[in-house]
Amino acid sequence: MSVASPFDSDPDATSAEDADLARELLLQKFERVRRTTEALCEPLEPEDCQVQSMLDVSPTKWHIAHTTWFFETLILEKEPSYRGFDPAFRVLFNSYYNTVGAQHPRPERGLLSRPTFDQVRGYRHWVDRQMTTLILTCAVRDLEALAPLVELGLNHEQQHQELMLMDIKHVFWSNPLRPTYRRADAREATPSPELRWIAFQEGLPWIGHGGDGFAYDNETPRHRAFVGAFRLASRLVTNREYLDFIADGGYTRPELWLSDGWKAAAAEGWQAPLYWETRGGQRWHMTLHGMQPLDLDAPVCHVSYYEADAFARWAGARLPTEEEWETAAGGTAITGNFVESGALEPLPEHAPSGTDGLLQLYGDVWEWTRSPYVAYPGYRQPSGPVGEYNAKFMCNQLVLRGGACVTPQDHIRPTYRNFFAAANRWQFAGIRLAGDA
Amino acid sequence: MSVASPFDSDPDATSAEDADLARELLLQKFERVRRTTEALCEPLEPEDCQVQSMLDVSPTKWHIAHTTWFFETLILEKEPSYRGFDPAFRVLFNSYYNTVGAQHPRPERGLLSRPTFDQVRGYRHWVDRQMTTLILTCAVRDLEALAPLVELGLNHEQQHQELMLMDIKHVFWSNPLRPTYRRADAREATPSPELRWIAFQEGLPWIGHGGDGFAYDNETPRHRAFVGAFRLASRLVTNREYLDFIADGGYTRPELWLSDGWKAAAAEGWQAPLYWETRGGQRWHMTLHGMQPLDLDAPVCHVSYYEADAFARWAGARLPTEEEWETAAGGTAITGNFVESGALEPLPEHAPSGTDGLLQLYGDVWEWTRSPYVAYPGYRQPSGPVGEYNAKFMCNQLVLRGGACVTPQDHIRPTYRNFFAAANRWQFAGIRLAGDA
Amino acid sequence: MSVASPFDSDPDATSAEDADLARELLLQKFERVRRTTEALCEPLEPEDCQVQSMLDVSPTKWHIAHTTWFFETLILEKEPSYRGFDPAFRVLFNSYYNTVGAQHPRPERGLLSRPTFDQVRGYRHWVDRQMTTLILTCAVRDLEALAPLVELGLNHEQQHQELMLMDIKHVFWSNPLRPTYRRADAREATPSPELRWIAFQEGLPWIGHGGDGFAYDNETPRHRAFVGAFRLASRLVTNREYLDFIADGGYTRPELWLSDGWKAAAAEGWQAPLYWETRGGQRWHMTLHGMQPLDLDAPVCHVSYYEADAFARWAGARLPTEEEWETAAGGTAITGNFVESGALEPLPEHAPSGTDGLLQLYGDVWEWTRSPYVAYPGYRQPSGPVGEYNAKFMCNQLVLRGGACVTPQDHIRPTYRNFFAAANRWQFAGIRLAGDA
Amino acid sequence: MSVASPFDSDPDATSAEDADLARELLLQKFERVRRTTEALCEPLEPEDCQVQSMLDVSPTKWHIAHTTWFFETLILEKEPSYRGFDPAFRVLFNSYYNTVGAQHPRPERGLLSRPTFDQVRGYRHWVDRQMTTLILTCAVRDLEALAPLVELGLNHEQQHQELMLMDIKHVFWSNPLRPTYRRADAREATPSPELRWIAFQEGLPWIGHGGDGFAYDNETPRHRAFVGAFRLASRLVTNREYLDFIADGGYTRPELWLSDGWKAAAAEGWQAPLYWETRGGQRWHMTLHGMQPLDLDAPVCHVSYYEADAFARWAGARLPTEEEWETAAGGTAITGNFVESGALEPLPEHAPSGTDGLLQLYGDVWEWTRSPYVAYPGYRQPSGPVGEYNAKFMCNQLVLRGGACVTPQDHIRPTYRNFFAAANRWQFAGIRLAGDA
Repeated sequence: MSVASPFDSDPDATSAEDADLARELLLQKFERVRRTTEALCEPLEPEDCQVQSMLDVSPTKWHIAHTTWFFETLILEKEPSYRGFDPAFRVLFNSYYNTVGAQHPRPERGLLSRPTFDQVRGYRHWVDRQMTTLILTCAVRDLEALAPLVELGLNHEQQHQELMLMDIKHVFWSNPLRPTYRRADAREATPSPELRWIAFQEGLPWIGHGGDGFAYDNETPRHRAFVGAFRLASRLVTNREYLDFIADGGYTRPELWLSDGWKAAAAEGWQAPLYWETRGGQRWHMTLHGMQPLDLDAPVCHVSYYEADAFARWAGARLPTEEEWETAAGGTAITGNFVESGALEPLPEHAPSGTDGLLQLYGDVWEWTRSPYVAYPGYRQPSGPVGEYNAKFMCNQLVLRGGACVTPQDHIRPTYRNFFAAANRWQFAGIRLAGDA
Repeated sequence: MSVASPFDSDPDATSAEDADLARELLLQKFERVRRTTEALCEPLEPEDCQVQSMLDVSPTKWHIAHTTWFFETLILEKEPSYRGFDPAFRVLFNSYYNTVGAQHPRPERGLLSRPTFDQVRGYRHWVDRQMTTLILTCAVRDLEALAPLVELGLNHEQQHQELMLMDIKHVFWSNPLRPTYRRADAREATPSPELRWIAFQEGLPWIGHGGDGFAYDNETPRHRAFVGAFRLASRLVTNREYLDFIADGGYTRPELWLSDGWKAAAAEGWQAPLYWETRGGQRWHMTLHGMQPLDLDAPVCHVSYYEADAFARWAGARLPTEEEWETAAGGTAITGNFVESGALEPLPEHAPSGTDGLLQLYGDVWEWTRSPYVAYPGYRQPSGPVGEYNAKFMCNQLVLRGGACVTPQDHIRPTYRNFFAAANRWQFAGIRLAGDA
Repeated sequence: MSVASPFDSDPDATSAEDADLARELLLQKFERVRRTTEALCEPLEPEDCQVQSMLDVSPTKWHIAHTTWFFETLILEKEPSYRGFDPAFRVLFNSYYNTVGAQHPRPERGLLSRPTFDQVRGYRHWVDRQMTTLILTCAVRDLEALAPLVELGLNHEQQHQELMLMDIKHVFWSNPLRPTYRRADAREATPSPELRWIAFQEGLPWIGHGGDGFAYDNETPRHRAFVGAFRLASRLVTNREYLDFIADGGYTRPELWLSDGWKAAAAEGWQAPLYWETRGGQRWHMTLHGMQPLDLDAPVCHVSYYEADAFARWAGARLPTEEEWETAAGGTAITGNFVESGALEPLPEHAPSGTDGLLQLYGDVWEWTRSPYVAYPGYRQPSGPVGEYNAKFMCNQLVLRGGACVTPQDHIRPTYRNFFAAANRWQFAGIRLAGDA
Repeated sequence: MSVASPFDSDPDATSAEDADLARELLLQKFERVRRTTEALCEPLEPEDCQVQSMLDVSPTKWHIAHTTWFFETLILEKEPSYRGFDPAFRVLFNSYYNTVGAQHPRPERGLLSRPTFDQVRGYRHWVDRQMTTLILTCAVRDLEALAPLVELGLNHEQQHQELMLMDIKHVFWSNPLRPTYRRADAREATPSPELRWIAFQEGLPWIGHGGDGFAYDNETPRHRAFVGAFRLASRLVTNREYLDFIADGGYTRPELWLSDGWKAAAAEGWQAPLYWETRGGQRWHMTLHGMQPLDLDAPVCHVSYYEADAFARWAGARLPTEEEWETAAGGTAITGNFVESGALEPLPEHAPSGTDGLLQLYGDVWEWTRSPYVAYPGYRQPSGPVGEYNAKFMCNQLVLRGGACVTPQDHIRPTYRNFFAAANRWQFAGIRLAGDA
């Protein structure tokens, strides 16, 4: 990963004051991100934090512990004087880092009733104190190496903040009582604007991260790609449009589907997006606010790649490539319905009629692209555990772009590449249509 | 089930005073059993009570709720004035009663983070209050019908007390931290007495429950059976003896095994009883006191029927039939290492050398018999949900006798029939050898 | 197994002439049984003989080879001068004899395109010649040991004759073309006689094989059992009666079913016996004569134990125990619709009205008993591979009695115990009702 | 698909003579390809042609029938006068064409003993006669539509010729007897030439099929792509080199593997390529000539994408993209070890030392690229069943290039895109290394 820090310009000239400022900024971000994670747990009971409702889901408690483990294992344990909080945690809370060592089996995360949530919080605070001391007291010459790792750890933690919300939604949906994570705020109905097509010329743009600021390794290196002329829909596909697809036999017409998708839909009995339910002839869906009537103007969410692809084929369109998306995103401001809005669900677009440009590009829902998640040309995998962060997953997944209503706003960039398997549906993923120009 | 009550002798003559005494005795037992269940939860955290570590295990919280559901559904709901605590619980905490209605899927019991443990306790206390009122205030003429159902509910609850201990042991074993349910008391080493063979003559004994007092329907009707001459070992098989079996290739010689057992052992990789572990060349096993060194004089425990059968064949013996066991038990006093001892593990026999008679007949471990669990001749299945209690499981299981160190002492009778599938190992089951005379 | 032979009475006195007669009789039976097996293959193509349509089914070619292997491995290989036909066959065609050695995995029997059917026939004829020579030329003193093994091998082969027909029926049913094994003969409709109940007194009968003639080890030792008064239906349950059960919700009412049966029925989608099909509103079933309309007067066939048990409960009756069946069979002549009739399907009873006694006791369909398949009291497992023949399967199965329309008539005895798992349906199994007297 | 035919230049001017010539050429190719398919069956017995040794494998008989079905269903059935050979075949031999209708379940292809191999051959010859008549007698105006479909059917059949060899290899390997499909010819040892790196400049090449001659739809449209500078290994990776990888812990070092690959390797116990075996300390592998010692100079074969990728990472290189491969292939002549050589296994390169250019580019083994199999920019899916041929599989697979020793030579083009899932190993797939320049 590349990380911009105050040292980037001229590290040798770093004065002690610069270093103190750097420490201060780093610590502020550390505290802010770590506090945010804990705040997400506030509505939850210890029992909620224990449950693993499917293989892809981790218990909240495990997220809380693992994000702490990340700082402990990748940073604190490099300090000669460091004594681990509990040696067993090295295995229990290792997600998938073979270079670190053995891992507690992923399907059994929900079986670990001990350490309790309170004990994990103790672990968390203990590591926080060690990290604080390290940031404040390490030698100036070590700060340069420390800062990018802390930055990585915090970005890692932000990803887990989103995972915690995705996962607890699934946990609560698995319970027939359909508990509420947080009460919904009242919202006025907003009709979605008409869909416009926005055209883009063919070109040879630079793709990927090249400048300052943090980015994951999988966004690098910046490279050129040939992109033919294309067009993008001005906004996301709505629930209303998706219902038209269903009404038109979307789930019963194999010619609309990829072969693997048709099989997955049959095997899992898909007849609508995940979390949808029909009660008394009306469409409802499970949200972090409990069961809610479906807002027809809101973006469709919790669809697999297969469903997004089938919808696009039905609509006479296709999904964009990630290069098209990134090119189109260009200088668009990174604003939208992120986790900070508190909505926790994608919202109808309320741009005034006549607004041009791409709407809902960021936030609301991750947008499936048709691009398989592979290494960029010239990609170099970092060494050590950091190299396992992204590289080994570059197979059998698709890229999604733009962030969602459960993503922290400052976590997202135009070059940000999220990725999921084609059959996954529990992430907040939706559809933006594209076409050849 | 047959239940002895103060009314049995002459119900018509029941005076109001008799009724009051009956109410009082019933309520005392109700309170005692219900309190015992709650006491078993004291060492547990809410997270512990949430976990379902395998399909056969239920979360502690579910046991707590289901035993309450039993009283609510089979007794309180019959009262016209009764309003249920929460209608959703009717499904959530129904184990397998099709005559009551739908059931939450068994493999998903561990996913129900709500109701929380505290809420379930609230449910419990609420039902306790309703039950108390009912017992104290119902019409005298209704008491006669009520008492056997309460008795059934309390026996049901005692079974779940044992299940709670079996299940939490498995939950804790599934955690590499191997938590402790309760600290072990210090114990002196006790060499196991020599194994003697006790001979019994052929006969035509009466088998099954026929007298006063509570018994399950599956212990009835009392009937005659021809039992040839046989002999029984004076005590249970010890860990030392079982280690000899292992050392002699017990797990690698197919000729010792039933075909299904050999397949199960291969599929699950059995090389020792469940919960055994070798650390540093020494044998340990998981207990409710955490990991403990194996006591070679204690009865072997947590073996499947297949292992018990293979051991017996290796030892040149066989397992007893349930009729042999019941015949031999005759008038032996029901004493032994039951849950009340607090040991929570089978203990070495400490009878003075020279004691004759059958040792360890009750308590310590359930004794596998070679008798498939089937209906007794002339068995009549009760109608309604009570008829689902035992009858529909009379296939593909084996009978075990005698109770274990996690069984309440007053729950056991000579005619008591426990039953498990041949591959089950998480119950406290051990081996008593038998042979033809 | 106990085997009657000319030597039984006074082996020492066996003259050379007796021996020659014994050789001649043995060889005649050997040739007759072996020829019968080959005759069963005549309607089949090499491709038919290759297919394993489910785990329980073996390809015809495998049966042909395995029955030959049995003679080669248990008899010929004991001769010092014997050189095996092909050493690889020792593993390929070993079914489950661990004392012989490794076994080709059962689920992969259908993958062995080589040896071809012709090559297997060559193996067969080669072994036949060796066996013939051995029978005709072995020393008189060895004949006594040889004869029971040949007898066992021939009984074994007769069991496989039945399996071949069961299995090829399943193979052909697995093909949407529903091929015909053999054309059906024309038959006149025969109304089934009224069902009468025949009562039997309580007693202490001898059960099991004790006399002369061949019997399997699992029929021994002869022993006493207490059998209460009971009654048996005079004939088998018909398809018409089973259709009444279906029409009355037999497959949708859990209260009629064992718990395991209800799960199996749901998991496998049972709504009728195996091989039944509804076409154009009419009931058909697959037979060895291809698809045929269901004969309502014929005995119901291809039901699992679970279905037989549910039907009996629905009918207010129960299934008999094997002791009841054997007691009732008493001296009834062993006649009926066996494989020699050529019908290959159970037939309506055509006894003249007014006939008393038990009808259809032998042949037509195996009759499910409620008796788990366990060792008789005092049973001793033979040593060596012969001991693996039956003993290791004495768990998790039920006993069936009486033989079926695909069983050789001279293979059956009143004491004969067949056994299948409760969920099996591809054997020719039906229902006789019983009740308490 | 685009198909060049005599009509392409100016269809309107097609004279009757041109048409006759076109008919003649088409018929010649039809007969040649169809005969080749049948010749591949000559070494096989009917039993061999029946077996489906895993889900991905189809029985030879099914291939023979399905390639015939293709002509019948896509061509003959469009003729109003046509009467199908057997209506059941429409379903039995439909592979995956939903637009045609229902399909016999793929996992059950091996259960269809009927029609027999002889009957399928009868079906084949019958369709051949109908096709011959149609080609020779259809109206001139219909010939233009017919020719591309025949061409497609023949290319389809060539793919199945390769599948037949891949599949029968797996069938024979599944048999412990390891039968031989065809005797091996004697070959001299040939040391593999030194590996050279050949550099290519960055550019904006045209990719995909654009000219005359047959190509599949997935090779179109021809489009530009940016390709950075890269280099390719001059020859394929050899068994010797792959053994070095194994010796260096290739299968035990997770850091070399994609995450999904590491899981697949563990789940399936990979320790070497498919078909490798160690006997007496020496490496052997299963071939169509039976078990053979491994030729260390021959290209490694039967590796999954995961293994190819791990090998490349271990070697400090990577796999090429399909655009790199196609660019590099440029005008290289399409020669090499194709099925016509009769070798049926990849062979050591025997180019004289000092030969420059890319060796083994065509034939021997399919070369894994790192390119996911996706639609080319601007791709349009054909309508009807032809549209199902390739498009619906454009997900979760990787592209392979260059053909193999079981591929017909005239089936291959520089733009030809083969595709398999990353875990597949039964196809003849090997490794060419690439790197950034």
